[in-house]
Parts: sequence; structure tokens; C-alpha cells
Amino acid sequence: MKRLWDKGAAVDDMILRFTVGSDYVFDNRLVEYDVRASIAHAMMLRDKGYLTAEEFRQIETGLIAIGEQHANGGWKISLEEEDAHTAIENRLVKEIGDVGKKVHLARSRNDQVLAALRLYLMNEIEVVSGAAKKVIEALEIIVKEQGDVVLPGFTHMQQAMPSSVSLWAGGFVRELRDDVDGLRRTRSRVNVNPLGSVAGYGAGPLDIDREATARSLGFDSVQSPVTSVQLSRGKAEASVIFELVLLVNDLGRLAADLVLFSTSEFSYVHLADSITTGSSVMPQKRNPDVFELVRARSAQIPAWLAESLNICNKMTSGYHRDMQLLKEPLLRSIDVATSVCDIMAHALNEIRFTPESIRVDKSIFAAELAYEMVVRDNISFRDAYRIIAESKPWEGSVK
Amino acid sequence: MKRLWDKGAAVDDMILRFTVGSDYVFDNRLVEYDVRASIAHAMMLRDKGYLTAEEFRQIETGLIAIGEQHANGGWKISLEEEDAHTAIENRLVKEIGDVGKKVHLARSRNDQVLAALRLYLMNEIEVVSGAAKKVIEALEIIVKEQGDVVLPGFTHMQQAMPSSVSLWAGGFVRELRDDVDGLRRTRSRVNVNPLGSVAGYGAGPLDIDREATARSLGFDSVQSPVTSVQLSRGKAEASVIFELVLLVNDLGRLAADLVLFSTSEFSYVHLADSITTGSSVMPQKRNPDVFELVRARSAQIPAWLAESLNICNKMTSGYHRDMQLLKEPLLRSIDVATSVCDIMAHALNEIRFTPESIRVDKSIFAAELAYEMVVRDNISFRDAYRIIAESKPWEGSVK
Amino acid sequence: MKRLWDKGAAVDDMILRFTVGSDYVFDNRLVEYDVRASIAHAMMLRDKGYLTAEEFRQIETGLIAIGEQHANGGWKISLEEEDAHTAIENRLVKEIGDVGKKVHLARSRNDQVLAALRLYLMNEIEVVSGAAKKVIEALEIIVKEQGDVVLPGFTHMQQAMPSSVSLWAGGFVRELRDDVDGLRRTRSRVNVNPLGSVAGYGAGPLDIDREATARSLGFDSVQSPVTSVQLSRGKAEASVIFELVLLVNDLGRLAADLVLFSTSEFSYVHLADSITTGSSVMPQKRNPDVFELVRARSAQIPAWLAESLNICNKMTSGYHRDMQLLKEPLLRSIDVATSVCDIMAHALNEIRFTPESIRVDKSIFAAELAYEMVVRDNISFRDAYRIIAESKPWEGSVK
Amino acid sequence: MKRLWDKGAAVDDMILRFTVGSDYVFDNRLVEYDVRASIAHAMMLRDKGYLTAEEFRQIETGLIAIGEQHANGGWKISLEEEDAHTAIENRLVKEIGDVGKKVHLARSRNDQVLAALRLYLMNEIEVVSGAAKKVIEALEIIVKEQGDVVLPGFTHMQQAMPSSVSLWAGGFVRELRDDVDGLRRTRSRVNVNPLGSVAGYGAGPLDIDREATARSLGFDSVQSPVTSVQLSRGKAEASVIFELVLLVNDLGRLAADLVLFSTSEFSYVHLADSITTGSSVMPQKRNPDVFELVRARSAQIPAWLAESLNICNKMTSGYHRDMQLLKEPLLRSIDVATSVCDIMAHALNEIRFTPESIRVDKSIFAAELAYEMVVRDNISFRDAYRIIAESKPWEGSVK
Repeated sequence: MKRLWDKGAAVDDMILRFTVGSDYVFDNRLVEYDVRASIAHAMMLRDKGYLTAEEFRQIETGLIAIGEQHANGGWKISLEEEDAHTAIENRLVKEIGDVGKKVHLARSRNDQVLAALRLYLMNEIEVVSGAAKKVIEALEIIVKEQGDVVLPGFTHMQQAMPSSVSLWAGGFVRELRDDVDGLRRTRSRVNVNPLGSVAGYGAGPLDIDREATARSLGFDSVQSPVTSVQLSRGKAEASVIFELVLLVNDLGRLAADLVLFSTSEFSYVHLADSITTGSSVMPQKRNPDVFELVRARSAQIPAWLAESLNICNKMTSGYHRDMQLLKEPLLRSIDVATSVCDIMAHALNEIRFTPESIRVDKSIFAAELAYEMVVRDNISFRDAYRIIAESKPWEGSVK
Repeated sequence: MKRLWDKGAAVDDMILRFTVGSDYVFDNRLVEYDVRASIAHAMMLRDKGYLTAEEFRQIETGLIAIGEQHANGGWKISLEEEDAHTAIENRLVKEIGDVGKKVHLARSRNDQVLAALRLYLMNEIEVVSGAAKKVIEALEIIVKEQGDVVLPGFTHMQQAMPSSVSLWAGGFVRELRDDVDGLRRTRSRVNVNPLGSVAGYGAGPLDIDREATARSLGFDSVQSPVTSVQLSRGKAEASVIFELVLLVNDLGRLAADLVLFSTSEFSYVHLADSITTGSSVMPQKRNPDVFELVRARSAQIPAWLAESLNICNKMTSGYHRDMQLLKEPLLRSIDVATSVCDIMAHALNEIRFTPESIRVDKSIFAAELAYEMVVRDNISFRDAYRIIAESKPWEGSVK
Repeated sequence: MKRLWDKGAAVDDMILRFTVGSDYVFDNRLVEYDVRASIAHAMMLRDKGYLTAEEFRQIETGLIAIGEQHANGGWKISLEEEDAHTAIENRLVKEIGDVGKKVHLARSRNDQVLAALRLYLMNEIEVVSGAAKKVIEALEIIVKEQGDVVLPGFTHMQQAMPSSVSLWAGGFVRELRDDVDGLRRTRSRVNVNPLGSVAGYGAGPLDIDREATARSLGFDSVQSPVTSVQLSRGKAEASVIFELVLLVNDLGRLAADLVLFSTSEFSYVHLADSITTGSSVMPQKRNPDVFELVRARSAQIPAWLAESLNICNKMTSGYHRDMQLLKEPLLRSIDVATSVCDIMAHALNEIRFTPESIRVDKSIFAAELAYEMVVRDNISFRDAYRIIAESKPWEGSVK
Repeated sequence: MKRLWDKGAAVDDMILRFTVGSDYVFDNRLVEYDVRASIAHAMMLRDKGYLTAEEFRQIETGLIAIGEQHANGGWKISLEEEDAHTAIENRLVKEIGDVGKKVHLARSRNDQVLAALRLYLMNEIEVVSGAAKKVIEALEIIVKEQGDVVLPGFTHMQQAMPSSVSLWAGGFVRELRDDVDGLRRTRSRVNVNPLGSVAGYGAGPLDIDREATARSLGFDSVQSPVTSVQLSRGKAEASVIFELVLLVNDLGRLAADLVLFSTSEFSYVHLADSITTGSSVMPQKRNPDVFELVRARSAQIPAWLAESLNICNKMTSGYHRDMQLLKEPLLRSIDVATSVCDIMAHALNEIRFTPESIRVDKSIFAAELAYEMVVRDNISFRDAYRIIAESKPWEGSVK
């Protein structure tokens, strides 16, 4: 047997290639989680009397070995196997014989895919959060070391009010923390147990214990009724991608600031040679490519969120094969978000604000002058505003 | 004075029309919230000594009166006034004289807009949640009254396993509850105090109390540092729209099921005449337009999420006028989500499952037969699966 | 009779409101086109013997009168009438009596909507093209009057090579011409005759002449087979919106340049007071709001393209009521694109490049120096590049 | 030398990896086109006197050899080389010595990338068109062999009017032809010569002939002025993706029909075993996965169009490194569109309409009955419609 649903009919190779797509590649990420979920499922089958203690022991030992072999590079999923689940079950039967065929009782690939995917996502939420925190740390070092540098604060890209590197970087720190918090809130959609919903309609006459697999795997709760499991496809995935959009968008805006600040017109910041690149035709150029690409990455993930949402949009209830494609935008988004965080944490160490060339318009103190006039002369803000606007005390003078 | 920033120069009418856009219409929704926020701000100014008790009393009385007049239809924001904030301050000065000019101390339209918008959003979250709960109630009545009707459960749109109206509707109930929970989780981004950030760089030398305005207005916390306020623009808005996407998508899928179930081929459900419409050319038609349009609405809101995300994408930090356009997709999404919930709660009362014409393929019991064989004959699931697949015990017989 | 499909059953008001949506408002734009198409249809019915000459004359006279009354503000479509088509047929029967009931032979609202919409689009393509050409003219005036001003050419937002206002504006002129060309190419999807496809499956036993209505209305060809008419829904609409995306995106990039060029750091361009706006708190500010909002508009239309594409995505063939919502993003896009062109044509007259404050880095001549070295010394470009990169002849000196 | 812009400074490996991304993999597709464009460029340099005949001969021979080696699998682009252009120039210098360093005169990677990409796109437009035509052929065979099968025509997913397999398939044939026409119209944006624009500001003092390279490479025209070349980035790419969206959407709707038609409730069509797949838990299932995945693919490409549009949206003029990421959604879209066409052309051979189980409601002849009444009784269509609607002559009887 090659595929879990194989009944012996001729396989159309072209159809196989098209339907499997890149799933067999992606699924190498899910192997360790499918092993964990399969063991939890088998343990529940044992506790409910569908497997003997010995059968369970063999299955568990077999699955652990298969997982370790995979982790050590001993095997990869082949196109013919379609996915992690088939690859593992095939190997299990080969490894421990017919008893391996008993593990698929009371489950379907539909709930199995989701169990592995959710365990994977729980892990990735922590991975991305950790990467985001490294950016926060890099910004905090900038606050500590360069925070006192005076910057103009901008509105409409015009110098507006006095600001500082501390306020500038601090704003990003706060938003990145907000992004991490948001990412973690998605666990309320991710950390629920799909196992036992089988193809979406439960295990029929079998007596299974969904709470038990939830406990074994650390899920917060059981997703119920069983029909809600497939109906919810795409919601946890899109929730994670949405939070990654906000995270990478914040980093894209940070990058946009640095691209602007490193123009010769602004000259607020100096980028170390190690993080700039050159031109094939202009010998003088040192370009902020890394920040341009972070900005461009921030333009991609929103589209992948749309991709994820499109797939389930308008679909009737119940599982559809369409949902397989949910993995693509999800994995792309996780990988890009992580790499963007990593590179920003790295590159932020290589920027230096250059107070010597930061030019602050005196006009940015206009609101402060009006405030002082309000307090000193006991006039209304509107009147002070008009007086200052007319007298233009900042004209002709630049710090 | 017509506009808060007016210094007397000639106004270019075409520019005014373009820059204001539909804001002056939308902003009628914000009047009551701006009144509340302005009173809280004035109270804080009084407590910090920038207004006398008497000045505050006049401002408060004036603002309340202006709010009530608006609620009673006494005035609407004009194009020339641009927005709610200008319209209210203008009326305040007209109503109570020069003391009204004192209210804008230590604030900018930038933080003022956000305060009103967030208070508005806190309210709308409850409005939409309430509408969604009415859909849940309508589904629960279906479960109660028609829950026992047997339905085939579908995978790949093929009959797959036995199901029921109870399982079908129950899946949607669970997901709609999840949507309401998600919508409420957005409060962590909405319910934070922007007041006191002024144009995004604070109030300079003035001694203000941001905790005080947070307390007055019921915000959970103060958004700090001040630079994060404008940097976060679009995040709360997009978070709300994202949850509305999930909510309306679930309703769109419910609608897609009902459109399918009411085809003559399926004939699972009968739609009352009162919720169907006719054709201009085919006398026999009764069409499920209402469900088609719910499905189509579910295709729109994801695009409005993209619209919201696009606006802030790649922008440098600090306020940009671009952000004004964040209101359009937000209000569109809220209005459509509410109307979709309302119409679904209504229309679900008018559907009746028709067990007499629901045809269930016997083959959907195949997995159950395999399960029974596993238990009875103590063979593995894989072997039972193969035996059932080959013997096809369901063939030739249909209920 | 209120609605074309009305058979006398009670009307559910809430359902009516939801299903009609804003269609009855939008459809006022289609009245004149529906009148034209209805006359062409009636003329064909006469020529094929389904109407007498006298009947046609009455119908034609009636329709023209109804169209003129509408153009003169004599009536508007009511919610109860649902759309332009019903409103016109109702009025026709009222105006000319029972003969008016004969006009709907061999047509359905499905083909009727499309005929009017396509005629409307043919007109709007010219309207938007005309507006875009005004921007081109404004840019050409800038080239003529200020073209010689030296600008640095940027790559990576860094000064890179010598450029000029002429080259800068000329690039946009070329792209706007390309946008107009693209918009006009959409006529190959717009200018095809849907009439006679009726509900999507033709007019059955009736002998109709689709070529005749195509000729009367100026359509290039007849869309055939009849099933393709509804299958193509959304394609012409999305094609138009796509070209508007490119057009407005080009204008958004032009606006982004001007926002950047008018920062105090760049100071390349001066914006007249008449096109800038102020701040409610900072008396000194003159902001480029109009260009910021053009940029923000350019971020909206791509989402409306997605909205348009989402609506038909994955739908089975044949008409669905979902398609009614195609009008919303289409009309929004047309209106915004037109207003963006209008405002840009206007605002570009109010900008002045300020050569006195444009700072050009000497380093931007580095490639030219290398080119000269290649020619003079007969060495390879790569070697010249390296020599220039190492000797940095531009250092320390700024114009 | 490893990179074209390398001046000897230490390379930050992490930055290199991030900035190069997957470009070095994608670029293997561009090698043959870069070779062609480089030869055309060198020929022009020779004709303008910047290369001797002998130098050109060496460069040409070297480039051809390098291209052939690549085509034969002799080398692949390494990460360190970044892209096709660097890889080829490096190899050229290695192969033919210092004369190879002369080829980069009067060009930049900016115009070089675009030249190769546009030549590649011209080819891919034909590849995808060819694949789409195979789907058209498969549909035409269905029309020929099964066209007479009677089908109900649907509106609102309800049986509406009589139709046939011929009309059903013919509608798709017409739309696919329209898609191919649309794809080919994108050549007006693709087939223009970017060479000679160098980094976006021309070749300064050098005397080059852009018409000559256009002629050599078969471009229809020269893109001018030079600034328009980078300003147009993304427009040709998005135009191609947009047309692929329409193409794949049409195929997705065809697939949606087939998924519906192969439900047991509809039973209009039988799918051969060779194109269906099974379930891991339900032994009886044969699922239309291939059509579900075509439908899901049609939900992805619109998002990739958004991705492409997002990248250039709101960018100031001039080249930005962001634009490198335009390749990702473009290549993904081309690959998926091609594979979807291929699989549909294949799978359509394996479907058979089953007239024996197609149930046609008699009510679908209602409009025809009304038409006949109009002709026979000389009454208006509206009156005939009402009479038929009330008498319901179709009730109780089904074919």
C-alpha cells in the first residue's frame, strides 16, 4: 500500500502530482507532531480497550523510532506517499507489522492533519515571538545607547514637534510587544483538540475519549461538536497570518523610516557597510537593500492572508480538498516573518544616529510656544495658536 | 473660523472637497463619542489647573447640549467643517463664547479622532456581537425543533458519513460563538487611551494626566509612549475587520449550504416564500437571493480588510493624512456584518428541513461497518477497510 | 405591479431591503443606458414581427420621455422598484398602457443589466481617460516650464545619477499614456452585446436577431454562445478596475514623490498655500494632505479589484444574485479614479520646483566619470568602475 | 569578484542570504534570456564603436557557450552570485578574460533584469496560451461527443431554462478564448525594450542605440523616456498575473460545476476512477480532488495579483530593491496557471455526462410556454408570464 485510501486501482501519475503538489515537502515539518498525536491517539485507543497494552507499546516504540529517524535525516516523505500521515503509517506497518494497521481506527486524515498542524503552530507561535523579542531587545539597546539624540517628530512627513530616538524606538517597542501579545492570543483558536472528529462526523459507534487526547497533547479544550472542526478550517491559520501581518507591517514601517533616514537629504542615520550593498553600475553607491526588502516583505504577507481567506470563502460545510492549500500561505508567512525578525534584530545593531547632521526646524517648537503663552497669559489655546501662526517667531532661524 | 487649522488664507474649494471626502458624513456617528471624550479631556484640564471649575462647567454643559441637539437631529456636520471635531468645537465657541476655545489645549485632532473612534468601536463590538447572537439563537431553535432530522455528512461534497440537522447547525453555533469571542478579544487593541499623545509627540511642557482621561472614559490602559499611538493606527481597525471577516465568512458558508440544500437536486430544505424572490422572465422561479447575497457579502469584507491593511502598509512613522481613509472600510465592514447577521437571524426562522425528500446513500455507513468489523472480528482497521471496500455491501440499495 | 417578478405574494420588507441594498441608488446612473438598450431591443422585436410599427413607436416615445424626465430630475428609482429596469418598465406601462408590457419579450433582467452596464462602462472609460489626459497636460506644462531644473535621479532612495524635472515628469507622462491605452483595451471585453442571452440560455423558440441590437447599440460583436454571457460576469468589470488600479497607482507614486520632495529635508518643490492644509495644534504647519490622500486612494482600489474578483470566484456557472454586488467596487473605483485625476490635474498647477534649494551630490557623476575613463583610456567598464570606487573623486565636495 | 557591485568590503553572510532570498534559484529560468539580451547589447556596443569586432566575437562566443552549458545542466547560479546576471558575467570573464569586463558598459542590472524578464514573459505567454488551448480542445471534444445531452440551465443554482452539454461547454470555450486573447494583449506592456535605461537615468555621455537592441531582440518599441522604465516596474508583471487570474478563475468555475455535477444528488457526470482519489477512513469514497484543487488554485492567484500590486504601491519613483520580490508572485502564478491548464486538459477526457440520471424539471419550460402564448394569443409577455405563473402547468410532472 502506498496511499491510505489505495484500493488497488491504477494510479494516474499526473493526477497524483497535481493533487499532492508540494504537500509532501511541507509535511516534513509535521512529522514530529504527527508522531506525538498518533501516540496520544493510540494511548486513548488502549485505554478504551481497542488496543492491548502490548499493541500500544509496539506502536509507540515504532512511532518514536520513525520520528527519530526522520529527525536524524534518515528519511523524507516521497511524492507517492502524499503526506506525513501516510508516510508514517506506511513505515509503522513495515517496522512493526500488522499491528501498525490498527492505529487508524477512529481517526481520519482530516482530524489527523489538523492535530499535527495545530501542534506545529503552537510551536511556531513561540518561535516567531522569540524572534520578535530579539528585535525588541535590539531597539532597547538603541534606546539605551542613543535614546537622547534629538529627532524632529513628523506628521505628514513634515517636521512637526520635538522628539527623540528614545521616543521613536520606544513606539516600535510598544507595537512589537502588542504584536507578540496578539500572536499569542491566536492560541485560543489553535490550541483546541480536533482528534476524534474523524472525517468531520465523529467515530460513529466507537467509544472514544476526546478529552484524553486533549490532555495528552496539551490542548486547552476539545473542539465540539465534531462538525465544527472542519468548519473552522482556515480560521486558526488566518488568525496566525493576520498577526504576522501586523508584526511584519510594524517592521516594514521601521524599515521605511530607516530607508528615509539614511537618504543623503535626511542623513539622520548611518548604516554600517556590513549591512549595505552596492550598485553594478554606480561605483559610489551603498544602498539600504536590507531595509527595502523588509519593507517589501511587509507588502507580501497581507496578500497571503487574503490567499488563506479566499480558500475557505463561500465553501459549503464539510471537508474539501481545497483546504490542503491552506498550508502554503501559512508556511510562507511563518518563514518570512521569522526571517524578517532575525534580519532586523541583526541589522539594528549596525545603525548609528548621527546627531551632527540632524537638522531640526525651529518651527517645531511652535506648539510649545503656544502652550507657554496659554499658561503665562491665561488666554485660550485657540487665541495663542492664532497669535503664534501670525507672528511666526521661528522664521529665518534654524538650529 | 471654519476649520481648526484655519489661519485666514483662501480656501481652495476643490481641494477641500477632495480632502474631506465622505468624512463629514461618517463623522456623524462619532459626535456622541467626541462629546464624551472632550468632556473627559476638559475635566482633566480642570483637575490639572488649566481650566477653572466654572470654565469646565460651561464647557461640559455646552458639549452635552451640542451632543443632544445632534442626537435629536438638530444639526449635521457640514462639508466645510470637515469632521465631527471641528463641528463640535465651532458650535461650542458659538454656544458658550471664548471659553470654548480653551478645550483644545493639550490635544490634537490626531488623538481626538482616535479617542472617539475607539469609543465608537467599543460600542460597535457589542452591537455586532448582539446581532451574531441572534443568529446563534435562530440556529438553536432549529436544533431544538428539527435537530433529529437525518442528514448525510459531506466530504468533498460527496455523501460521506451519517449526520443530522443538530450536528450541522451545532457546528455553526460553535463557530459563531468563536467569532464573537474573537471580536471581543480585539478590545485589547481598541480599549486603550490615545488622549494626551496630541499629534503623536505629547503635550510638551504641559502637565497632563493621561490616566485620568483613561479612567473617565473606561479605557483599560494608557497607550504609551506617545509615539506608539499613531504608529498603531490601523491595527485596532484591521483587528476588528479581521474578526468580522471570520464572522461573515461563517455566515456565508451557512448561506452556501442553504443555497445548495434548496436546489431541486438536493431538496433538503424548503425556504418560505417570504424569503425568496422571483425572476423577471421565468414565471416558475423562487430563488434564494437572500442567501446568495449573504454569500456575496462574505466575499466583500476580506477585500475591505486588505484595503485597511494597504493604507498603513510601508508608511514611515508619524501621522499621515492617508489614515483618514481607514474609516471607510471599517464602517462598511461593520454595517455589512451587522446587516448580514440581522437578515440571517430573520431568514433562518423561515427554513424547514424536508426529511421526506432527503436521500441518504447507504454507502455512508461503510466506515461504521468497518468499525463494527474491527470490534467484532478483532482485525485491524486497515484490513476491515479493505474488506468493506471490496465487498461494497451498500451497492444497489438506497433508503 | 412593483417588481418584475411579482406574482402577488406578501413581500417581506426586511428581505427586500437587504437584497436590494444600494442598487436602487446606483442604478440611477444606468437609466439613460437602459432606455437606449430597451429601444434597441424593441426595434429588433418590431423588425422580427413581435411588435407592430405602432407599438414600437409608442414604446420608443414612452422610453425617451421617461429617460428625459429622469435626466431632468423628474424621478428617482425607489427602493420598492429595486432597480433601473423595473422602474423604467413600471413607468412605461403607466405612461403608454398595456403595450408597455410587451417590451420584456425575449429578454431578462440578466441580459438587460449587462447591456446597460456595458454601455455605461463604454462611456466611463472615456470619462476617466479624459480626466487622465488632463493630468498628462498638467505634467507637460511642468516639463515645458520647469523641465530644465536639475534633479538627482534616485535608486534605493539614494542619489544615483543626474536627472531633471523633464525626465521625472516625462516618465509619468509615458506611464499615464500607457494607463489610458490599457483602459481602452478593456473595450474588447466591454463592448460586446449580451442582449438576447436572456437569463443565460437564450430565447428558446423565439426568432430574435442579436446582430441587430449589437448594431443599434454600437457593440463590436455579439457574445455567443448565450451561456458565455453570465459566465463572463465580472471579467469586464475586473478588467476596468485593474486598469484603474494601474492608473491610480501611477498617480499615487507621483503623489508620494511630491510628499517626499516637499519635506524640509528635501525642499525640492514648493506647494502653493491653496493646495495645502493646516494642523489643529501646530500653528506653523502647511501639509501636503492632497497628495497624501491621492497616495491613500491608490492603496484602496487594489482592494476593490480583489473585491470584484472574489465575488465570482469559485461560483458554478449560470447567474447568481451574488453578481449584483459587482457594481459596488466598480462604481467606487470609477468615482475615485476620476476624482484623483481631477485633483491631480488641478494640484499639479500649484507646484513649483525650487532649484535654489535642490542639493545634488557630486557622487552622482561617478558612473559618468567611469564611462569617460572607458572611452578615454580604452579600459573595461569593470576596471574603470573599480578605479573610481577606490579613488572617490567626488568626496568632500557638494554643489 | 563575486558580486557585480563588490568593492572588496567584508560581506555579511546573513545580509546576503536575506537580500538574495530565492532569487538565485528563480534566476535559472532567466539565463537563456540574459544571454540573448547580453549578446544584443554587445552587438550594439560594437556597432557604436565601444567594442571591436573581435571583442564582440569573443563575448558572443563566450555567452553562447555559457548559455549552452547551463541548458545542459553544467552549472547553476550559486547564492553568492546572487542572480543570473552576475553569474553570467563572472563566467564570461573567467572564460574569455578581461574583455568580458567590457560588456557591462552602458547598462545596469536594473535594465538587464527587465530585458531578460520580459523576454522570458513573452515566451511564457505562449506556453500558458498553448496549455489553455489544450483545455479548449478537450472541451470541444466533449461538445462533439456529448454535446446533445440535455442539461437544465441554472440561475441561482435552481433549474431555470433548458440547456445542453454543448451550451455548457461552449460557454467555457468562449471564455477561455477570451482569456487567451487577454493574455496576449499584455504583450503591449511586456514587449518593449528597457535596455539603455541603465539604472533608470540613461547612459549619460555614451552614444548608444536603443532601437538597435529592440530590433535584435524583437521588442516592438523602445520604452522612453528612460525614467519610465523603472516607474513601470510591476505593471507588465501585474497585467500578466491579472489575465492568469481570469483564466484560472474560469477553470475554477468549470471545476466547481464538475464537483457539483458529480455529487450523488446531481449525478450529471461520471468521473473515471483514474482521476478520483479515495478516503483514508471511508472505504466507499471516490472523490473529485483534482477539481477541488483546481478550484482552490483559482482562489490563490488573485492573492498573488494583490501581492504583486502591493509591492510597488505608494513607492516613490526610481528603482527600489523591493521590486526584486515581484518575481515570486509572477513565477508562482505562471507555474500554477500552466499546471491547472495541463491537468484540466487531461481530466476533461475522463468525464462522461450521464443522461440516464439527469433529471430535468418540467418547470424549466415555463418561459417557453409564456413565449408561445405571446405569439399564439397576441398578448403581452407580462400577461402571459402572470397566466403561466398562476396556472403552473408544470406541477406534479417530472421527466
